[in-house]
Amino acid sequence: MDKIKIVIAGARGRMGREAVNLVNTTPEYSLLAVVDYKYEGMSLKDLDGFDLDIPIYTDIDKCFFETNPDVLIDLTTPEIGKVHTKKALLNGVRPVVGTTGFSEEDLKELQELTSEKGIGAIIAPNFAIGAILMMKFSQMAAKYLSDVEIIEQHHDQKLDAPSGTGLKTAEMIAAVREEKQQGHPDEKELLDGARGANYKGIRLHSVRLPGLIAHQEVLFGGDGQTLKIRHDSYNRASFMSGVKLAVDSVMKIDLLVYGLENLME
Amino acid sequence: MDKIKIVIAGARGRMGREAVNLVNTTPEYSLLAVVDYKYEGMSLKDLDGFDLDIPIYTDIDKCFFETNPDVLIDLTTPEIGKVHTKKALLNGVRPVVGTTGFSEEDLKELQELTSEKGIGAIIAPNFAIGAILMMKFSQMAAKYLSDVEIIEQHHDQKLDAPSGTGLKTAEMIAAVREEKQQGHPDEKELLDGARGANYKGIRLHSVRLPGLIAHQEVLFGGDGQTLKIRHDSYNRASFMSGVKLAVDSVMKIDLLVYGLENLME
Amino acid sequence: MDKIKIVIAGARGRMGREAVNLVNTTPEYSLLAVVDYKYEGMSLKDLDGFDLDIPIYTDIDKCFFETNPDVLIDLTTPEIGKVHTKKALLNGVRPVVGTTGFSEEDLKELQELTSEKGIGAIIAPNFAIGAILMMKFSQMAAKYLSDVEIIEQHHDQKLDAPSGTGLKTAEMIAAVREEKQQGHPDEKELLDGARGANYKGIRLHSVRLPGLIAHQEVLFGGDGQTLKIRHDSYNRASFMSGVKLAVDSVMKIDLLVYGLENLME
Amino acid sequence: MDKIKIVIAGARGRMGREAVNLVNTTPEYSLLAVVDYKYEGMSLKDLDGFDLDIPIYTDIDKCFFETNPDVLIDLTTPEIGKVHTKKALLNGVRPVVGTTGFSEEDLKELQELTSEKGIGAIIAPNFAIGAILMMKFSQMAAKYLSDVEIIEQHHDQKLDAPSGTGLKTAEMIAAVREEKQQGHPDEKELLDGARGANYKGIRLHSVRLPGLIAHQEVLFGGDGQTLKIRHDSYNRASFMSGVKLAVDSVMKIDLLVYGLENLME
Repeated sequence: MDKIKIVIAGARGRMGREAVNLVNTTPEYSLLAVVDYKYEGMSLKDLDGFDLDIPIYTDIDKCFFETNPDVLIDLTTPEIGKVHTKKALLNGVRPVVGTTGFSEEDLKELQELTSEKGIGAIIAPNFAIGAILMMKFSQMAAKYLSDVEIIEQHHDQKLDAPSGTGLKTAEMIAAVREEKQQGHPDEKELLDGARGANYKGIRLHSVRLPGLIAHQEVLFGGDGQTLKIRHDSYNRASFMSGVKLAVDSVMKIDLLVYGLENLME
Repeated sequence: MDKIKIVIAGARGRMGREAVNLVNTTPEYSLLAVVDYKYEGMSLKDLDGFDLDIPIYTDIDKCFFETNPDVLIDLTTPEIGKVHTKKALLNGVRPVVGTTGFSEEDLKELQELTSEKGIGAIIAPNFAIGAILMMKFSQMAAKYLSDVEIIEQHHDQKLDAPSGTGLKTAEMIAAVREEKQQGHPDEKELLDGARGANYKGIRLHSVRLPGLIAHQEVLFGGDGQTLKIRHDSYNRASFMSGVKLAVDSVMKIDLLVYGLENLME
Repeated sequence: MDKIKIVIAGARGRMGREAVNLVNTTPEYSLLAVVDYKYEGMSLKDLDGFDLDIPIYTDIDKCFFETNPDVLIDLTTPEIGKVHTKKALLNGVRPVVGTTGFSEEDLKELQELTSEKGIGAIIAPNFAIGAILMMKFSQMAAKYLSDVEIIEQHHDQKLDAPSGTGLKTAEMIAAVREEKQQGHPDEKELLDGARGANYKGIRLHSVRLPGLIAHQEVLFGGDGQTLKIRHDSYNRASFMSGVKLAVDSVMKIDLLVYGLENLME
Repeated sequence: MDKIKIVIAGARGRMGREAVNLVNTTPEYSLLAVVDYKYEGMSLKDLDGFDLDIPIYTDIDKCFFETNPDVLIDLTTPEIGKVHTKKALLNGVRPVVGTTGFSEEDLKELQELTSEKGIGAIIAPNFAIGAILMMKFSQMAAKYLSDVEIIEQHHDQKLDAPSGTGLKTAEMIAAVREEKQQGHPDEKELLDGARGANYKGIRLHSVRLPGLIAHQEVLFGGDGQTLKIRHDSYNRASFMSGVKLAVDSVMKIDLLVYGLENLME
């Protein structure tokens, strides 16, 4: 089988470095080039922390024209990501994009481009497969076990409580169950805050301790049983299985998919 | 809305008692009668442990004819369950059956009956919704995070290891991933059995301790992350949310469904 | 070795029934009699739920005089427990008492009685050995890993949050560490209560769900590591290993011990 | 209060680098010099990965003489560590040593030296405070809840199963309880290895998955309850709270302590 030929934009960022490593160590992938806003004509190995001889382009159209890739992995910024995604489709290159900030209009335009060109495109605000599965399963479980609390645990340098993933999970659950009061109607907090935050009846608890990284438990209770779904994220490498899923999937589809959860049955 | 009119067979068993309690305490349900192999003409309140005035029938056809129920909940034995299921369908009563032992032929015949009568039927070898969700989610997760180990924990009176649910989970996972060796190819057991049992590359670990009831963790690992799905079953009441799901669902379908997992999207 | 001869007061209560069962099924124990406020002259087997032929006394002095026990297990009420404890010591019987409500003066008087008589006595407000160990270990750990949060989880019929054990644990920890603010100094609750209750800087989170029984996690964090101590209590039988520890210990000591934690090194 | 004046040997190793960082960021500590086998007369900032202007000595006696430290932190090798420890004591410097390989004779000689000089010394084969607490608590708990299984979880690059910490924990537990068979006497492994490894009746289960780092659960069971002690180690920084404990403690003692557990009450 032919290797999937890949170009990466944003290779010098933290996610980008992981992506370079992913493509370089996956036998079915081949890294053709990287796109950057500077270093035209240089090689990755000229830069700190890389030892691969991969050409750098500052002009993405020229890069596509000269290297003829199958897939663009874009890990840049929302503004640049939008431009790159469109240019990729116009050049017949399938984009896998990790940035947010696309409007509904943008998405509609990109959707039309994928139809026109007959190729796939994937935009994924979150590449952490484990976290996506946790949220998806939580939403499914809430249909059958509607009492649920979320306990998210992060290092004590985190400012916001609850975490974004915690809130997103609560929103996804609230979307499929009726709002309800949980706990005893007459329950009483002897100390303020003991019962946590309340999002449409779902309680969220934020634990902050040194040593913790990024963890979340979603706990469902029913008569005589509990179901717990827990995700532990230890480092940025955890995003790479999501990138790989997206690259493999984008080769097989001919439409725009927004969110990795929509690739999972 | 009209209440769902229900008859229960097997009411004196342990599951049956829970089912009587469930129907009796659910406002949208109405318990019309129970079917038993003895005590014809008596009332539930004549029996130990019940205080409901509900008539007992030994003739199920007579029971259906006189009480005209919507649903039969059958928690008897495989042999009797088969007969009851067929009679229910012939009488236009939707069966919710908790017994096993139906052959493929049986199921085909029942499927035809549901079509003919235009009513639903549900056969569920397992009513524990949490356990079913755990298995279903595990199978889904294994497509994206293919390294997995199962740790099931039970009281120390249990004879078999691994547990039936543990094995069933491993089988469901094995059905959707390629067989693979997990762990390091050169790993070495300093003490025999440390790495647990091996089912098509999936490792199973059985913990047995006094105090434990019935618990299972399915642990998935990927680069930089882990995903854990854990079910704790504390008592028989844990089956009742499954019975309720089945009763509510059987009113809305017009075919035979085998296994609660097939009611869940 | 001679069996330990035991009398139980409060045998008809829920704890008392477990204690009768414990003594009856422990080969080294012998149940001589029970003390009750009624049923004088009857036998346990005359009462609902017992099938042991054990005499019932309403006069505790008479009971001690006629049966000459080694140990009194008292599971009555604070008022009665106080009287029984004193009478036991005066009769040379070693008391194991599960009630609270002793004043410092009471304890001092009882301490003097144990010295005088040269026999042991144990008063234990809590017989749940696992919970006591959890609290003891938490207090020890807090000296070395001073950042800690408590997550206690109970069924949703519980009214108070945090639980008594949760608060007690926080108090025990606070007693051995300096008060400190945990979490980031600039942390912000996007939803009120997300960071839980605050007891001298220790955060407490109370989860309430159907299906849960009585569980508590104490989570310590330090650089690059976390330590979790979790206790799960499933039923009243969990108190019996504490009663057994107390009975075995009271035979070997000649002073008053208040709290099982003081029997543990 | 005066700062504790510290010299580090082995600063270029992985633990050593963490120790340099610890001393440098702890306000009550002052880093005077490092001892190395080369780079005499240079400064730490001349070496890769350091930016501190701290003198390097190759002659430890000269280092002690010129800088007059309170404490030597030694993170070298067993052979060098032995020599350094003795020289430190002879020079009146309190050693905190992280190497193994001391014979009983060595320890006796060092013990005598501490008495003679009237200063403390600490030798610690393991600086991971959380892991030490886990083992210590497990040993304590086993006296009261004697049924126990160990589940240790590591990344799938680890070759040996069970882990060293797992085995050490089992040994410590076995030392305080009688050997006993756990589980049902008639239990049966449907798949070989399901019940794990057996060390004097204690079952050990080794989980190996990508994503995992280094984790261990010790699970105790008793009537109606379980107690779990879990340690998660995420990175090498987890050793530093142990080094800090040792440095602070060595200033207050005047004898040799072997093993951090002996500093903890």
